[in-house]
Amino acid sequence: MTFREKLTNAAQANRSLLCIGLDPDPARLPISDATTFLRAIVEATSDLVCAYKPNMAFYERMGEAGYATLRAVLEAIPDHIPVIGDAKRGDVPHTAQAYAEALFDELGFDAVTVNPYLGGDSVAPFLERADRGVFIVCRNSNPGAGELQDLPVVAEEGSRPLYEVVAKLAQGWNSRGNVGLVVGATYPNELRRLRELCPELPFLLPGIGSQEGDLAQAVRAGLDASGGGIIVSASRSVLYASSGSDFAPAARRAAETLRDAIEEQRRTARTRTQV
Amino acid sequence: MTFREKLTNAAQANRSLLCIGLDPDPARLPISDATTFLRAIVEATSDLVCAYKPNMAFYERMGEAGYATLRAVLEAIPDHIPVIGDAKRGDVPHTAQAYAEALFDELGFDAVTVNPYLGGDSVAPFLERADRGVFIVCRNSNPGAGELQDLPVVAEEGSRPLYEVVAKLAQGWNSRGNVGLVVGATYPNELRRLRELCPELPFLLPGIGSQEGDLAQAVRAGLDASGGGIIVSASRSVLYASSGSDFAPAARRAAETLRDAIEEQRRTARTRTQV
Repeated sequence: MTFREKLTNAAQANRSLLCIGLDPDPARLPISDATTFLRAIVEATSDLVCAYKPNMAFYERMGEAGYATLRAVLEAIPDHIPVIGDAKRGDVPHTAQAYAEALFDELGFDAVTVNPYLGGDSVAPFLERADRGVFIVCRNSNPGAGELQDLPVVAEEGSRPLYEVVAKLAQGWNSRGNVGLVVGATYPNELRRLRELCPELPFLLPGIGSQEGDLAQAVRAGLDASGGGIIVSASRSVLYASSGSDFAPAARRAAETLRDAIEEQRRTARTRTQV
Repeated sequence: MTFREKLTNAAQANRSLLCIGLDPDPARLPISDATTFLRAIVEATSDLVCAYKPNMAFYERMGEAGYATLRAVLEAIPDHIPVIGDAKRGDVPHTAQAYAEALFDELGFDAVTVNPYLGGDSVAPFLERADRGVFIVCRNSNPGAGELQDLPVVAEEGSRPLYEVVAKLAQGWNSRGNVGLVVGATYPNELRRLRELCPELPFLLPGIGSQEGDLAQAVRAGLDASGGGIIVSASRSVLYASSGSDFAPAARRAAETLRDAIEEQRRTARTRTQV
């Protein structure tokens, strides 16, 4: 089964386009053990999500213990829920091959995020794995992302922002049907434009919750013609919904609220299209 | 002591601008144990280099064992030789902070490589560590690097390639004096242009040896006005100089040849300038 099929199946089974970012922050953990915490989060939410997304940075910060935590968390995620390794790697081809093996084979991620700055041959070792998903970092949610990503690149008629050029390149890299884009949920206009440019690529949308992206706007701007094609990712707003011993049910409530809000936007969008 | 001071001291002590990339490749190891291999390489070459540069990908590919190997290699490198963690990380600020802690605190690197695609605020958590070096990935050595990096960005007069815009941004990020650039040794023209734009930034030059960068051209194009300012990095051509049991002395000979060839170019360049 490909990543895309696994994602679609999970989204249908759980009626959800919500992805939870599993990013342990020692300063905010309601209990001292990150592994126990994350396993409880997964157990409390696995019927509400279409995917999980651990970001490597938060595990790497914990050294050997972080690596063990990541292994335990991956083990705890039910087999039918796809896992996106948020690694944003990017290196020359020979090295990118090692990263692809680290993420796909050693850790077993169903999909990864990849940085495009080194060009198509640096992304190729990931793309070659047709059964895995490759989300190209395109337009990020942080305030400074536009510093490079919005730079006007000379185009046939005037100019176009760099992130649009990246989106078009990513489209060209999609010969195996395994490419997606990372697009920050905080920029609905850019998101709408990217959906026009890439009608069929799945979009991974971080920035909901702590990064203050507007959920309704982001969902409407990102949905594809079939009313899907987005993975809405939230991390801190779910994980740390409560700092008390009720953290797991609180995370479940936060996830359910988000899941339902996304579904509500999808219904509205569908009705609107039919009228 | 800052990274820059440590680098200068090591370069002077060993009369060397050579950096060895410590990138274990299981398929090419002359002995089965990566840790023993790399420790022998370090022992055989530590009086010939100005820095070592482990690339994280090759350790991550080996899972837990790779992490243990990396720890052992870092332990084996003499304290006075700076170590550059080649990680090319890049993520939103909150996550970049976790990466900075992983690389600088958990692993203790003196410097790291960072991807600029997410903009200045994504690089800031690295830059804030004034005692550490931050090499911004600018113009890479792989054939496809130009796909993004050479894109013409609209400028006051006509256009300039994206990598030049990145170089100018990096220059602006150098308020603490800890910024450098990664520039592939395979593109001497780009290297010369970047030296004009950034006369004082140190350049990390990968691509010598296996990636077929021309050493003489690269050194001449990259040297700063003081006859330094470059770190010439070679990996496979040194590590795998012999596939037999003489791998350590063979690596030493390869490193010495490279070190001396770089010094010869520096001497020639100096003489030329004085005439």
